[in-house]
Amino acid sequence: MENYAKIANTGKYRVVIVGGGFAGIELAKSLRDADVQVVLIDKQNYHTFQPLLYQVATAGVEADSIVHPFRKIFAGQKNFYFRLAEVAHVDTEEQVVETSIGLIKYDYLVIATGATANFFGNEQMEQNAISMKSLNDATELRNTILYNFEQALQTDEVEQHNSLLDYVIVGGGPTGVELAGALSELRKHVLPKDYKELNFKEMDIYLIQSGPQLLKGMSEEASQKALEYLEDFGVKVWLNRRVQSYDGYTATLDTGETLITRTLIWAAGVTGNPIPGIRKESLLRGNQLKVDVYNRVDGYDNVFAIGDIAAMLTEEHPRGYPMLAQPALQQGRLLGKNLKSLIVGKPLEPFEYDDKGSMATVGRNHAVADLKLLNKEYKTQGFFAWLIWMFIHLISVVGFRNRLVVLMNWMWSYFTYDTGNRLIVGRKHVNIPMEETVSHKTME
Amino acid sequence: MENYAKIANTGKYRVVIVGGGFAGIELAKSLRDADVQVVLIDKQNYHTFQPLLYQVATAGVEADSIVHPFRKIFAGQKNFYFRLAEVAHVDTEEQVVETSIGLIKYDYLVIATGATANFFGNEQMEQNAISMKSLNDATELRNTILYNFEQALQTDEVEQHNSLLDYVIVGGGPTGVELAGALSELRKHVLPKDYKELNFKEMDIYLIQSGPQLLKGMSEEASQKALEYLEDFGVKVWLNRRVQSYDGYTATLDTGETLITRTLIWAAGVTGNPIPGIRKESLLRGNQLKVDVYNRVDGYDNVFAIGDIAAMLTEEHPRGYPMLAQPALQQGRLLGKNLKSLIVGKPLEPFEYDDKGSMATVGRNHAVADLKLLNKEYKTQGFFAWLIWMFIHLISVVGFRNRLVVLMNWMWSYFTYDTGNRLIVGRKHVNIPMEETVSHKTME
Repeated sequence: MENYAKIANTGKYRVVIVGGGFAGIELAKSLRDADVQVVLIDKQNYHTFQPLLYQVATAGVEADSIVHPFRKIFAGQKNFYFRLAEVAHVDTEEQVVETSIGLIKYDYLVIATGATANFFGNEQMEQNAISMKSLNDATELRNTILYNFEQALQTDEVEQHNSLLDYVIVGGGPTGVELAGALSELRKHVLPKDYKELNFKEMDIYLIQSGPQLLKGMSEEASQKALEYLEDFGVKVWLNRRVQSYDGYTATLDTGETLITRTLIWAAGVTGNPIPGIRKESLLRGNQLKVDVYNRVDGYDNVFAIGDIAAMLTEEHPRGYPMLAQPALQQGRLLGKNLKSLIVGKPLEPFEYDDKGSMATVGRNHAVADLKLLNKEYKTQGFFAWLIWMFIHLISVVGFRNRLVVLMNWMWSYFTYDTGNRLIVGRKHVNIPMEETVSHKTME
Repeated sequence: MENYAKIANTGKYRVVIVGGGFAGIELAKSLRDADVQVVLIDKQNYHTFQPLLYQVATAGVEADSIVHPFRKIFAGQKNFYFRLAEVAHVDTEEQVVETSIGLIKYDYLVIATGATANFFGNEQMEQNAISMKSLNDATELRNTILYNFEQALQTDEVEQHNSLLDYVIVGGGPTGVELAGALSELRKHVLPKDYKELNFKEMDIYLIQSGPQLLKGMSEEASQKALEYLEDFGVKVWLNRRVQSYDGYTATLDTGETLITRTLIWAAGVTGNPIPGIRKESLLRGNQLKVDVYNRVDGYDNVFAIGDIAAMLTEEHPRGYPMLAQPALQQGRLLGKNLKSLIVGKPLEPFEYDDKGSMATVGRNHAVADLKLLNKEYKTQGFFAWLIWMFIHLISVVGFRNRLVVLMNWMWSYFTYDTGNRLIVGRKHVNIPMEETVSHKTME
């Protein structure tokens, strides 16, 4: 028994939740009053509010203000136990999870590990692109952007100069669109004040989308307006193109076109983050776990999956629900209720997705929103949508203190056209040294 | 000329300032209206408000809120140029600084590189202790503290457990005293809520001071009260002792006493941070540069030093002014004035230190202050001193936005007995693995 992690045995059953994203913390909360021990395992000690990662990356809000320590979120919940650990494997026969701090037994296992950037096996891309899934990714991008401009001051050579000033964002979903909008705000209002020696007319922002429209899954109006707004802001939106390779300097598209940039942001697709040990038969394409209407993983009695990692295939959603906060929160909440029913032998309630719509912000004063309220659809774009977007995101940020800091930042930057966090603190993306890229010119 | 850094030639003379601490930015500001080009070189892109580093380390304020980007501070100053670079060497004959981005010529060179932790050649100590001079140090300490508690949950073995729960702070100056006070606040109000499984009666905080009193340089009353407050808060203050060695687990004192801890914080002494290439004869003990009353480095016409790196030996201060913010700010301001005089051939004004006193805070509601106003001395300790300390530090934080965030944090933690930033983000101190320290027990 030596290699068991130390956790007191309390409660009748132990529910082990792997991953503290939206789904995981919502489940833990809804088990507040259950006669179970809730053990949350995460490799970070904080929950990340992912929808605002792009604002950290563009120096809009403090990194610390969009994350919240698990121990603080659950300070008042007696049956809650947090363990900072990485999960290596699960043995569903023995009902035990193998982690970096030892083995952890479970009665019910809930996999809420979310999704990670999908590079479709392109290792060169994975190595050279920056993704936007974690706080580390976001601060790395922020540091890289600022460092690029510092470096750009030191070269006159046109191509090198452009490679530092130009940005390529791959993927026209909410992350790509919001990031492109925020970058164009920086270019217009903030950076020229900081870098008077640079000419920001030379800074190009490309948004590459594989399909014919942005914000796939939203309404035609929303897609169209998002495109309009971005083009108004001077973003070069390239539709119907894929980036096929990127060596850290030259991005090559399926059309044969090339773009020179030292910073390619990959927001093009995600893949599930399954735990080794779960049977292969339950894994779908995209590494998601196939679950039934109770979020039970196919082939198991006491193993569940919720949020982005779970694929609940229904007639209306034959490829599963969209990987958004709402399905994750709702699945977490319902599973809590169902686990309580399961324990006392009551019947379970099947999941039904209450789609409240979706939205994306596109720079200052502009957003697009497809809302669903009381079974009615409301589509709105522009300033009003932007106000709604801000309100909903502000109240959704976890932690009252965080909400205050985010609000203060937003008000500050709205009235001053300034952002407060243009800091190079911590890791930056490792660029190919300038010397090594000069040869590219002759290769083309 | 290939290897010169790219900086346009503007202004009649170029003043190169190395280091953007209090002294460096104050000098750059006071050259606002001079017909010179001001080039500030720093290896970070931000100014750090060092007096609040200990609050970052103890999760009291956001890391981002006590630093401020240079480019933002000087956004309105036309003759100001910032370069993110490390200085390797100076050639005072050729008047050129060798940096990581190339050579930079100067007409006047100002060394404002500050001081760094002095381990007095003890390499083992340097490797195992955490110092408190930079934002990276402070976040590293924060991450380490939080990680220690996570680890402590996983061991029952008494000595190992204590090694994770106990803290040794070396040095009873303001940093040591403030850190000890803040840690005892965490122990009392914050950590027990986060780590209900741990017994915080087992957490010991040691403050080791080589001399017979804390806060050397302040009044007898201040020293005495600081000691009283700390002992009331349960800090174990050990006077007249030195830590002689620390292997990352066992700290051995000159009295032969030993303390077991995985976290030893070194706040015991600093040493100047000189630039290679400055003649040895100008270097004093403690690696400071000997300067005249105009802050001119001994032996040079156009090389100056200000702030912690400068030693201006006077009758009243035979070992130079204390390494505090006030002398640095005042020297920076006067040197700006003097450089302007020098250029037009006017006589220079000798430096006179306007000592406004000093203060230190000791946990919630308590501080000690020796103030000097209009040549009168005021000594105060307790709640009123604490209010003064807060007011002065708040208005001194650089940047209005930062002031708001810090104020909000302070009000928040004052009323909720909570702090907001208990995040393990980024690097932590590399501890010796538990397995490797078990043997220590048998060695003693």
